[in-house]
Amino acid sequence: MNPLTSPLLTDLYQLTMLQSYVAGDMRGRALFEFFVRTLPPNRGFLVACGLDSALDYLARLHFSATEIAYLRDTRRFSPALLDYLADWRFTGDVHALPEGTPFFANEPLIRVEAPIGEAQLVETRLINILHYQTLVASKAARCVIAADGRASLIDFGLRRAHGADAGLAAARASFIAGFIGTSTVLAEPLYEIPIFGTMAHSYVQAHPNELDAFVDFCRANPTNTTLLIDTYDTLHGARLAAAAMRRLAKDGIRVQRVRLDSGDLLTLAQGVRRILDEEGCPDIQIFASGDLDEFRVRDLLDAGAPITGFGIGTRLDTSADAPYLECAYKLTEYAGQGRMKKSAAKATYPGPKQVFRTYRDGRMSGDTLGLMGESQAGTPLMEQVMAGGRRLGPPKSLGDIARYTKRQLDSLPPELRSLAARAETYPVAISPALAELRAATERWLAATAAVAAPPY
Amino acid sequence: MNPLTSPLLTDLYQLTMLQSYVAGDMRGRALFEFFVRTLPPNRGFLVACGLDSALDYLARLHFSATEIAYLRDTRRFSPALLDYLADWRFTGDVHALPEGTPFFANEPLIRVEAPIGEAQLVETRLINILHYQTLVASKAARCVIAADGRASLIDFGLRRAHGADAGLAAARASFIAGFIGTSTVLAEPLYEIPIFGTMAHSYVQAHPNELDAFVDFCRANPTNTTLLIDTYDTLHGARLAAAAMRRLAKDGIRVQRVRLDSGDLLTLAQGVRRILDEEGCPDIQIFASGDLDEFRVRDLLDAGAPITGFGIGTRLDTSADAPYLECAYKLTEYAGQGRMKKSAAKATYPGPKQVFRTYRDGRMSGDTLGLMGESQAGTPLMEQVMAGGRRLGPPKSLGDIARYTKRQLDSLPPELRSLAARAETYPVAISPALAELRAATERWLAATAAVAAPPY
Repeated sequence: MNPLTSPLLTDLYQLTMLQSYVAGDMRGRALFEFFVRTLPPNRGFLVACGLDSALDYLARLHFSATEIAYLRDTRRFSPALLDYLADWRFTGDVHALPEGTPFFANEPLIRVEAPIGEAQLVETRLINILHYQTLVASKAARCVIAADGRASLIDFGLRRAHGADAGLAAARASFIAGFIGTSTVLAEPLYEIPIFGTMAHSYVQAHPNELDAFVDFCRANPTNTTLLIDTYDTLHGARLAAAAMRRLAKDGIRVQRVRLDSGDLLTLAQGVRRILDEEGCPDIQIFASGDLDEFRVRDLLDAGAPITGFGIGTRLDTSADAPYLECAYKLTEYAGQGRMKKSAAKATYPGPKQVFRTYRDGRMSGDTLGLMGESQAGTPLMEQVMAGGRRLGPPKSLGDIARYTKRQLDSLPPELRSLAARAETYPVAISPALAELRAATERWLAATAAVAAPPY
Repeated sequence: MNPLTSPLLTDLYQLTMLQSYVAGDMRGRALFEFFVRTLPPNRGFLVACGLDSALDYLARLHFSATEIAYLRDTRRFSPALLDYLADWRFTGDVHALPEGTPFFANEPLIRVEAPIGEAQLVETRLINILHYQTLVASKAARCVIAADGRASLIDFGLRRAHGADAGLAAARASFIAGFIGTSTVLAEPLYEIPIFGTMAHSYVQAHPNELDAFVDFCRANPTNTTLLIDTYDTLHGARLAAAAMRRLAKDGIRVQRVRLDSGDLLTLAQGVRRILDEEGCPDIQIFASGDLDEFRVRDLLDAGAPITGFGIGTRLDTSADAPYLECAYKLTEYAGQGRMKKSAAKATYPGPKQVFRTYRDGRMSGDTLGLMGESQAGTPLMEQVMAGGRRLGPPKSLGDIARYTKRQLDSLPPELRSLAARAETYPVAISPALAELRAATERWLAATAAVAAPPY
């Protein structure tokens, strides 16, 4: 039972609800939409991400004989449910925002339309996939905007990501957002993401002296020669990097970069740059890492730090300043009737929705949240990506998704490209048809037995 | 290439360093220790967790033919490295704090002792495993302390955990810390953790009325009858739960619990309790969920909320108020010589360490961070758990680990059991022998060519 693909990586209630749907033969068509209720205070927009992984999950999901046997052995489930699950496949339709699309509160990332048991069963892992990749893509997009083309960004976060697949998903999501690659090796064979690596302090420490460590490393890795120079004394390390460069010259090996991983990065980068230039190594670039995020990257580059690349790790992969989104996967229609939740502060919009986006001078100028099929000004953003459980068309390449994302980020209104931007400044209107459906659904709820009054 | 087990789920620098170690035939024995530099401001202590998963990883790790073929195809690596990796196995020794042990800054969770390339190669995923489980166990322990036996706690966080691996690991870590179970189904077959589930709002919404939804659910799941009553109106939902109880009586089915998932939980729980008692259902218990953490649990119970169980999700599984730890895996000895990092604010202690813990009246009264084999007052906490790449003894059962953890949490000094506790209040001394080794290592660093002075 591989957690990455097992249908048992779900909440127990999905199975108990399904048991009841099977018992009651409730197979009506349900629409569920996944959306974010409110954006974290420090996010002016979010970037849709994770769709390809989600569709891959839906297309392959099934119960193995081992999984069915486990469920039977628990004695919790009826023979009818076990029979149903044994041939279970996802047969629904899916509409979604393309990966890399900026979006705002209440705009669906994805809509699943399927017999209710199917749409319900996939809820937990769909949220698990889409929530995390969107979280990281949104944080990474802020880093890309902060760098603004002045430096390259690389994901360094695997070790402190929350688990194995988070590390890998963060490599994917940050590449989509505009990072040039990751340190995570497995991202290359699995996703064809460029990988980058330097050396650890332990490497320097294990050598009898720092200069030998630098020279040996470059000889063993002649095409990947980034030297970590802060193990003992950063400025002295810079002189040793230059000395290594001279020693290696006769082997035809160049030192490409030095890396700073601690201390006052602005002052150190300036000092290191001066030393490297004095020592006749103007082509050795400076790469920085250590406790970085979009704010540090912006501040360093705005202050003129001579840094051409950043490794961004922990705060990216954990989305440290906003480690989760207030998101939900909610029933919006069942058996042709709009549905909504009414409980305090968590009321939802019923019906199958579409997001219409208008542009002015190439920049996004406002969205309308309306109903699918409505005629509204603007470009409709939700696209059908799955029909009858099958993906429509091959997966897009990550490169294509990254290029699309870049165009999307370039089209953000200038005020949303500020790191201090508040999402509320971007106008999202509710279409009259959606407002009317909501009112009608409220009337229907009040009129039907849904909120049955006494006597019971 | 399964991300959960692949040796390629690592940072590229592990492989480039190894290439250099192989080229230079550097096979000296290295000691690496994994520790937390400083605790987050809102953690008075941390709880060691993830060791069993880490040992399992070490014991099984190897390169498959597919992985070797990928590495060869990249043309980045020497034939010597590929040969070395083809039969690579971890052959080292491991000492560690038992899972469930509270610990503080600079105290090692784990020490790996192996030929340097081996100890280096496992760094990334070891941190990835231990960091996250420790993060969640530490947060979960705070929730357990907040509940203080007054209510049961269940992990509800899978959907917003950062990926599949995190969701499952959070179920494990929170169970160790004292949760009674999780909603994550897969935690039962993989870890024998009790699982719990209720129903979703969509279940209620899809039914023609709420009362029918309640009755149908209990008939389909007669031994698991928790009713979610906040879809439309929580107090009205409580009356419907009582009505469902009456309807189901003739089938011999009891409603065990109602669940509140939104709104002012204190006021609603009091109102619901009153209604259930009035309606003759004093045995129906109230379970609450929704944006909970240790502070909300404490405040609700201190205010007398008649709630007997809590589902704690997002803020637990993301450790939302401290989503990462300042941790490091550092070389402390190589080829018999103590090693340390000197760079600003990140200096480390050399040598193989032991943690000695003293108790007074059954409560922890202070630690001494010393050297392995030293004679110090107090109980030595680090134990050998692996020798020559083989685990010493079978894995402990999760139940045993949870019972050990409970005793450990019960022995915390009263001031550390406050949610506002600061770790600085707990005394951790450095033994004279460790202080002397550090001074000697500094002198050695200054005297050797490690920080080679000009001319180069």
